[in-house]
Amino acid sequence: MKRRKVEIYDTTLRDGTQGEGINYTVRDKLAVAQKLDDLGVSVIEGGWPGSNPRDAAFFEGIRKIRLRSATIAAFGSTVRPGKAPSADANLRALLEAETPVVTIVAKTWDFHVREDLRIELDENLELISKTIAFLKKRVERVILDAEHFFDGFAADGEYALACLRAAADAGVDLLCLCDTRGGSLPAAIGDATRAALALAVPVGIHCHDDSGLAVANSLAAVEAGAVQVQGTINGFGERCGNANLCTLIPDLQLKMNYRCLDPQQLQRLTEVSRFCAELANVELERRLPYVGRAAFAHKGGLHVAAVRKNRATYEHIDPALLGNEQRVLVSDLSGRSNVVSKAEQFGIDVEGRHDELASLLSHLKDLEHSGFQFEGADASFELLMRKNLHPFQRFFKLVGFRVIDEKRSDEGDTGCEATVMIEGPDGVVEHTAAQGNGPVNALDRALRKALTKFYPSIEKLQLHDYKVRVLDGQAGTESRVRVLIESGDGEDRWGTVGVSHNVVEASWQALVDSVVYKLLKDERIGARKPGAARRAKPIRARRGAA
Amino acid sequence: MKRRKVEIYDTTLRDGTQGEGINYTVRDKLAVAQKLDDLGVSVIEGGWPGSNPRDAAFFEGIRKIRLRSATIAAFGSTVRPGKAPSADANLRALLEAETPVVTIVAKTWDFHVREDLRIELDENLELISKTIAFLKKRVERVILDAEHFFDGFAADGEYALACLRAAADAGVDLLCLCDTRGGSLPAAIGDATRAALALAVPVGIHCHDDSGLAVANSLAAVEAGAVQVQGTINGFGERCGNANLCTLIPDLQLKMNYRCLDPQQLQRLTEVSRFCAELANVELERRLPYVGRAAFAHKGGLHVAAVRKNRATYEHIDPALLGNEQRVLVSDLSGRSNVVSKAEQFGIDVEGRHDELASLLSHLKDLEHSGFQFEGADASFELLMRKNLHPFQRFFKLVGFRVIDEKRSDEGDTGCEATVMIEGPDGVVEHTAAQGNGPVNALDRALRKALTKFYPSIEKLQLHDYKVRVLDGQAGTESRVRVLIESGDGEDRWGTVGVSHNVVEASWQALVDSVVYKLLKDERIGARKPGAARRAKPIRARRGAA
Repeated sequence: MKRRKVEIYDTTLRDGTQGEGINYTVRDKLAVAQKLDDLGVSVIEGGWPGSNPRDAAFFEGIRKIRLRSATIAAFGSTVRPGKAPSADANLRALLEAETPVVTIVAKTWDFHVREDLRIELDENLELISKTIAFLKKRVERVILDAEHFFDGFAADGEYALACLRAAADAGVDLLCLCDTRGGSLPAAIGDATRAALALAVPVGIHCHDDSGLAVANSLAAVEAGAVQVQGTINGFGERCGNANLCTLIPDLQLKMNYRCLDPQQLQRLTEVSRFCAELANVELERRLPYVGRAAFAHKGGLHVAAVRKNRATYEHIDPALLGNEQRVLVSDLSGRSNVVSKAEQFGIDVEGRHDELASLLSHLKDLEHSGFQFEGADASFELLMRKNLHPFQRFFKLVGFRVIDEKRSDEGDTGCEATVMIEGPDGVVEHTAAQGNGPVNALDRALRKALTKFYPSIEKLQLHDYKVRVLDGQAGTESRVRVLIESGDGEDRWGTVGVSHNVVEASWQALVDSVVYKLLKDERIGARKPGAARRAKPIRARRGAA
Repeated sequence: MKRRKVEIYDTTLRDGTQGEGINYTVRDKLAVAQKLDDLGVSVIEGGWPGSNPRDAAFFEGIRKIRLRSATIAAFGSTVRPGKAPSADANLRALLEAETPVVTIVAKTWDFHVREDLRIELDENLELISKTIAFLKKRVERVILDAEHFFDGFAADGEYALACLRAAADAGVDLLCLCDTRGGSLPAAIGDATRAALALAVPVGIHCHDDSGLAVANSLAAVEAGAVQVQGTINGFGERCGNANLCTLIPDLQLKMNYRCLDPQQLQRLTEVSRFCAELANVELERRLPYVGRAAFAHKGGLHVAAVRKNRATYEHIDPALLGNEQRVLVSDLSGRSNVVSKAEQFGIDVEGRHDELASLLSHLKDLEHSGFQFEGADASFELLMRKNLHPFQRFFKLVGFRVIDEKRSDEGDTGCEATVMIEGPDGVVEHTAAQGNGPVNALDRALRKALTKFYPSIEKLQLHDYKVRVLDGQAGTESRVRVLIESGDGEDRWGTVGVSHNVVEASWQALVDSVVYKLLKDERIGARKPGAARRAKPIRARRGAA
């Protein structure tokens, strides 16, 4: 049996940006559109050209970019009461966007027509009809977003359907039914969708997550016969967000046997999810189904032991289908399985090291108790493991550092300078200084400047992210803080952690771990160069700790 | 018609803590249990006494606390193969927990029996039967958590039901059906639940969110006849988390007319949600339905204009039912409505100030463009508004500050000292110094020390949270950073923001805003003392800006 196709309509760039904290520049929007095209969505709604200059600029920019398969939609509302369509600034802006698809939002709930538009019910029908007829003559494909359709259908079903009929009679190509307030339940969604299908125009579904049911409601509509699903990457959107395409697409394709994307494209879903979050500069909820960092993360000792035997015991699906991966977490709920699994991942030999493993586990629990968290700092955990199981020689020793921040007036900027003195191999001391955009940046630069003398590869090290977390809320800026640093060298990325009452001290710990991790990594790669075994060898045991 | 009761079984303290980043101390767990009791849940699953010492300590502690209505459950697994129940350490630990409810997890999926337990199918039935019979003689109420029941029912329905029957015949009080991998769809959940109900024992439901359907699946089971719902506050839990009780309870009670909590208790839901996140020290996803900070937040100008006319236009439910509240966001999608709404909230008179409002909006868009974000910094936004609409006199002027961080060896701690010179009222200069646990803490202390001389109420100011966000990922520690500070004075809490390439400078901006907000607030309260009007008066216009 041929699998039924469901069209994916992405509105991350329009409805998604109504979400708290979601702000894209024009450049961001163009980059997101290209990612969505790579992913293979059918329609990309780029914005509301009549509402702000940024969206208008996006449509100008996207016309110059050749997309592989996606078509671009511009969004706007029905003509203003009393205006002729050709004289309506909003509709004119839509046409100027020159997109093959135009989506028009229209009221379909009598309450909204009365309370928000404050016009007669019949006048609203006319606005819909006039708008669609006007656009149909000028645009390839016209979609109606039937705002509040499900609330409208519950309140006055006849009127809600009359609104759809006005659009259908004017030649609309698709009726997208919106649960704008996100308050409907799946059974009601199914019933109303079936009622709309009686108009013999293809139907789509657009849900919001205010009852935690955006995905379930979208699935209910598809099962009732909807052929288009509107949603956003990561569920970005106003209030509780829109239906999350990163959940909906795998549900439809992997669980319900519909066709949405090519399987190769589906493997980019995790990448696209993180890309859209990165550009919006928001922290992604790690529990997001399918694409979240924790979606396939195992923490409880029993579960880790089971997935080591067979992944399907606690994974409903293979994470590789979405480009995601399994992770084993280390915490005080961890058993030996978690630690052994990590050791394997790091290529650390733990064969027959029962006592060392036990003492490592107990040390780990103490560190976690004092505020360390290794879930986001694999590199620090790897160093901890190596120090306990296969000690290696320290690369350098701190003699001392000093950082000075200074500001000399209300208007002046704050200047910052760090001095660092370290002892490198063979007792050679390097004393240097650097300016920076803050104490940690200055320290980071001075440390790397000093180390580059001994280890030139340090130049490639980059700090990508720097996070500070106050641990005991009540004490304000006196609290203990945990610093997480994400570093990279163009090939890999790694996370390190530091904890202290002093943010500079905590940052220093994380910086040092990052640098030591890089140096160890380079040493291992050196050992792997021509002639060496492909599998990472345990670092040779040397005296002392890093 | 009497509304059917659905029992709420909370497993935040057990299954919830399997989630990444969710770690509670014993004290935290006791505090969470009391909050859950206040909320009115029926059963609180406290932990797995056989698995770690912390959980055992919790059960000892909770016995000494008088709860209003909740009963405590201890969790464990079926007896180990080959062991007599009385000799099984895990079952003994369960009895030692002395709880009125014991919940036993048992395998019901043939694949798991073979792959994970690695025993014969019949032996598993015996383990279930022996365990339940043993406990039923010693514990008031015994619940079976039928692990992987839905996967088991799909794979070998007869065997899955045989597992339930073994427990039913041994006298179990309730069969809780678990979608442990979170991979099932609502229709399958409904069918399997109906099959289990044929055993004539009450049935519960326990779902995970790996397909984004934990809430919908739980609702499907309740509609099929389940009388107990298991879940966690905020959906904390392994991988994608458990069914979120903060969504499920309102859905059941407000949308589907079941009885779960007393309506007064339901109003505490938002507080409980935030409390559990606070103690776990995790950032809550702001889009959480019903209880999230953004659940009733409006950003788009048109939506704000509509909710100002009638809240029901874009809110599916009254946030007060859950103790949550409406928020209006300010961003470059904002129209005049957003700003006017904020002004009203702050008690700032904007009557007839069209030009100033327009210039404020444009200034706001520039600031947002440079990295400011006021969504989490209402106090900074209020100051910005006042400066533009009702300028007030500055309270102090910075002459200069200097901060020194120093570390003199690998092992030594980092010391930190700040000096601050400010000019207060009447040109009086105060020059002072303070040590701190980091540059920002030292600066904060020195600034407040200096200001207390002029404004004694500053002593009450506390910094509750301090967040640093790197804005342009690629530049590492050189990036621009945004600092968000949450402050309080025992009565109110407020957020302020600073942006700079230098984290100390950005922190300074946020600190100064926090202090100025506090001083303005005190001035307004002073103006409201006996005889003054109750409604906040606009601050009197004075020369200069803060």
